[in-house]
Amino acid sequence: VERGDAVALDLTDPVAAFRDRFSVVTDGPIYMDGNSLGRPPAGIGEALAAGVGAWRSELVSGWEEWIDLPGRVGDRLGRLIGAAAGQVLVCDSTTVNLYKLAAAALRSRPGRREIVTEQSDFPTDRYVIEGLAASEGRVVRAVGPAGSDAGAVERDIAAAIGPDTALVCLSHVHYRTGLRLDMARLTARAHDEGALILWDLAHSAGACPVELDAGGVDLAVGCTYKYLNGGPGAPGFLYVGAALQEELVQPIWGWFGQAEQFAMGEGYRPAGGVARFLTGTPGILGLIAVDSAIAVSEQAGIAALWAKSVGLTSLLIERAEERLVPLGARIVTPALPDHRGAHVAVAHPRAWAWCRALIESGRVIGDFRSPDVVRLGPAPLYTRYTECFDAIEAMAETLGSAPDNPPARRVT
Amino acid sequence: VERGDAVALDLTDPVAAFRDRFSVVTDGPIYMDGNSLGRPPAGIGEALAAGVGAWRSELVSGWEEWIDLPGRVGDRLGRLIGAAAGQVLVCDSTTVNLYKLAAAALRSRPGRREIVTEQSDFPTDRYVIEGLAASEGRVVRAVGPAGSDAGAVERDIAAAIGPDTALVCLSHVHYRTGLRLDMARLTARAHDEGALILWDLAHSAGACPVELDAGGVDLAVGCTYKYLNGGPGAPGFLYVGAALQEELVQPIWGWFGQAEQFAMGEGYRPAGGVARFLTGTPGILGLIAVDSAIAVSEQAGIAALWAKSVGLTSLLIERAEERLVPLGARIVTPALPDHRGAHVAVAHPRAWAWCRALIESGRVIGDFRSPDVVRLGPAPLYTRYTECFDAIEAMAETLGSAPDNPPARRVT
Repeated sequence: VERGDAVALDLTDPVAAFRDRFSVVTDGPIYMDGNSLGRPPAGIGEALAAGVGAWRSELVSGWEEWIDLPGRVGDRLGRLIGAAAGQVLVCDSTTVNLYKLAAAALRSRPGRREIVTEQSDFPTDRYVIEGLAASEGRVVRAVGPAGSDAGAVERDIAAAIGPDTALVCLSHVHYRTGLRLDMARLTARAHDEGALILWDLAHSAGACPVELDAGGVDLAVGCTYKYLNGGPGAPGFLYVGAALQEELVQPIWGWFGQAEQFAMGEGYRPAGGVARFLTGTPGILGLIAVDSAIAVSEQAGIAALWAKSVGLTSLLIERAEERLVPLGARIVTPALPDHRGAHVAVAHPRAWAWCRALIESGRVIGDFRSPDVVRLGPAPLYTRYTECFDAIEAMAETLGSAPDNPPARRVT
Repeated sequence: VERGDAVALDLTDPVAAFRDRFSVVTDGPIYMDGNSLGRPPAGIGEALAAGVGAWRSELVSGWEEWIDLPGRVGDRLGRLIGAAAGQVLVCDSTTVNLYKLAAAALRSRPGRREIVTEQSDFPTDRYVIEGLAASEGRVVRAVGPAGSDAGAVERDIAAAIGPDTALVCLSHVHYRTGLRLDMARLTARAHDEGALILWDLAHSAGACPVELDAGGVDLAVGCTYKYLNGGPGAPGFLYVGAALQEELVQPIWGWFGQAEQFAMGEGYRPAGGVARFLTGTPGILGLIAVDSAIAVSEQAGIAALWAKSVGLTSLLIERAEERLVPLGARIVTPALPDHRGAHVAVAHPRAWAWCRALIESGRVIGDFRSPDVVRLGPAPLYTRYTECFDAIEAMAETLGSAPDNPPARRVT
C-alpha cells in the first residue's frame, strides 16, 4: 500500500466531514487512542454551559427535565447498538453496571453454579465477576486466554457453557487484541443451555455493528468515553432486554430504582421496566455531555462508521505487515474484519518503550497494553486514512531507538 | 421578631458577601431549597470549560492529572467534615457508596445478625439496607419513627444496639424533620457493643459541624449537590476511617479499586488506603464541578456557615411560631440548635397544596415531604435573613388559598 492510496481514500471518505466537529490540531501527534478516550465533539462545551444555565435558572425544578435523562440518553444510545427504546440506561459506571446486572442474573439462576468468562478479559470484568462468584457462592469457569483465532475462542466458550452455567459474561471486542466474538451465536448457545448472557460493549459501542435485540441478548453494559466521546469518566450504560426486565432484581436498592420514587414509602418495590436498574441520583452534567456527544455518532450512522473503521484497520494491518512485521513485530488482531473490532494490536517485545518513544517524539499517541502490545485505536469519526499510514511509518522509524521494556507502567 | 431585625442581621452577616458568588435574581422567588439542590457558584461554568479544554488538548494524557481527583477532591471535602486527608473519596452516587460501605461492614461482622436503623430514614438508605439485609442474611432492627425529641430518639437507638448488632446506619440530619443526632455519642455506643457505624451526611455536609475523626466514626457517605453546590446529581462521597481501611473489603471489585491498576494482573487485590473503595472510572466533569463548588464553602468556613445557619433557622422558627402556628401549622424541627440541622420542617394537613401554591405564586420555592411537611432549607452561603422573614410571610398569606392535598406528588 502506498501513501497515495491513503490520500485517495480520505478524498472519497463519506464521513470525512465529521472530523471538522472535533478540534484536531493538524500538526499535533496522530491520535490513535480514541478507543481509550474519544476527542471532545464541538458543541459539548456549549451543552455543558447550557446545563449550568438551566441549573442556575430552573434550580430544583430543573429535575422535571433532568429526571428522565438516563432513559432518554439511553434510548438514543440504544439506536447505535440495535436496542429498541426502553431497554438502555446511561447511568453509574461500566463497573457498577456490570456488577448490578451480573448479580441480578446470578440471583435469577440460583440453582446453577458456574459463570463462564474469558480469562484475559478486561480487569474490571474479571474482578467484578470474581467478587460476585465469591459472595454468591458460584465458581468462575474462565476459558482462554483468547488468542487471535476467533473461531477457536468461540468453540472453547461454547463448549464451556452447560446445564450448570448461570451466566456467560464476555467482552464483545477484546480490549487488548481487538478480537470480536460472534454475539448472536454465543447468545444462542447460552440460551440453549438456559443460561443468561451479559456482553461488555466498551470496545464496540459507537464503532462496530451491534444488534442487541436481533441477537436476543439478555444483558449488556458499556462505556461512553471511547468511541462515543462522552468525556473522561463519562457515565456507563446498561441494557436489559425487555423480556427480562420484570424477572431480574438488581442488588443496589436505591430510590431511583424504586416504584413511585417520591412517595418514599416503606419497603423497596422495584420500578417497572428498565428504570429498576437505576440506583442513586444520576449525574446530570455527565449525561448532558454524553447526550451531546452521541448525537454526532448518530448523525454519521453506525453503518458508515463501521465501513470506515474496517477501512482504517485494514490499512493499518496491511501497512504494518509491510513495515513492522519485517522489524520483528507481530499483528495480534484478526485479519478478517468479521472477527475484529475497531482497533489493532501490534505486539513486540519492546512494546512498552516503543509506545513511550512514539508519545515522547510527539508523533503518535497509542496505548501500551501489558505485556507486549501497542494498541492503535483509529476512531472512525475523526481519524484519516493518511494518519493510519503515517502512524505505521512513525512506528517503523521509532522502533530502532526504543530501549528495552521496564516491568510495568501506568497507562489508562 | 420584626422585619427590621432581619434587615439588621443581614447588615452584620459576616458571610453575606458570599451571596455575590451565586447569581441570585433579586426579584425572583425566595429559594428555600438549597438543601435539595444548591445554587451554582460563580466559576463552575469556567471550571467545566477548562475541563473540556484540558480534555481537548491533553486527550488521554489528561488522566495523569485526573486520576487522583476522587481523593484530591475528597481531601478538600474532608476538611469540611472533620476528616484528615486520605479518608474521603468523591465518587459514584450516595446510594452506591452506602451500598459499598454497608456491605463491607456487614462482611466484617459475619457473626452478628442485626442492622440498626431508623424507620423514617431517607428512602435510599432504608432500601439499600433492606436489600443488603436480605442478601447477606441479616435482619433490620428499625427504631422510630423519629419525632422531634432528639434525646428520646437517641435513647431508643442506643437501646437497640447490642451484642448482635453488626452495623448501625443513621442519617446525621433527618431529611424531613431536620432532627440532628449526636454523632459522637451514638458512635461511642455502637463501639461499646463492637458494632460499626455508618453515618449519612447528605443533609449536614457543608452546613453543620461534623467531626468524623474526632468522633471516632467508622464510615460515612453523603452527597455534594445540596449545601456543597456540586450540581444536579453531582457525585457522592464516602469516608472510611484510616484504622478500618485495611480491614474492610467492599463488594464491587472494579479496576480503580485494584492494587497496581495498570498491571491488569490476575485476581483482585484491593488497593491500599481508601482507594480500595473506588469502583469504575470516575466521572471527571462532575468532579471538576464539585471541586470548584466546595472551594467556596471552604473559603467561608464551616464555623461561620453553621453560625449563620443557626441564625437563619432560628429566625424561620421564631417567625413561624408567630405567623404560621396560629394558622394551624406545627413546627416539626427541634427548637434547640444542638438538635437540628440546617433546614426547618413546617407541618400542615394541606402541606402539599400549600407548597404548590407557594411555588406557583413565584414567591417561595420549598419542598413538600410526604405526608404533611413543607421543608425550608435556607442555605447559609447565599440566603438572607430577610428572605427567611419574607418566606414565612408569604407562607402565611398563601395558606388560606391552598386547597386540600391530593394523595401524592412527584417532587425531588
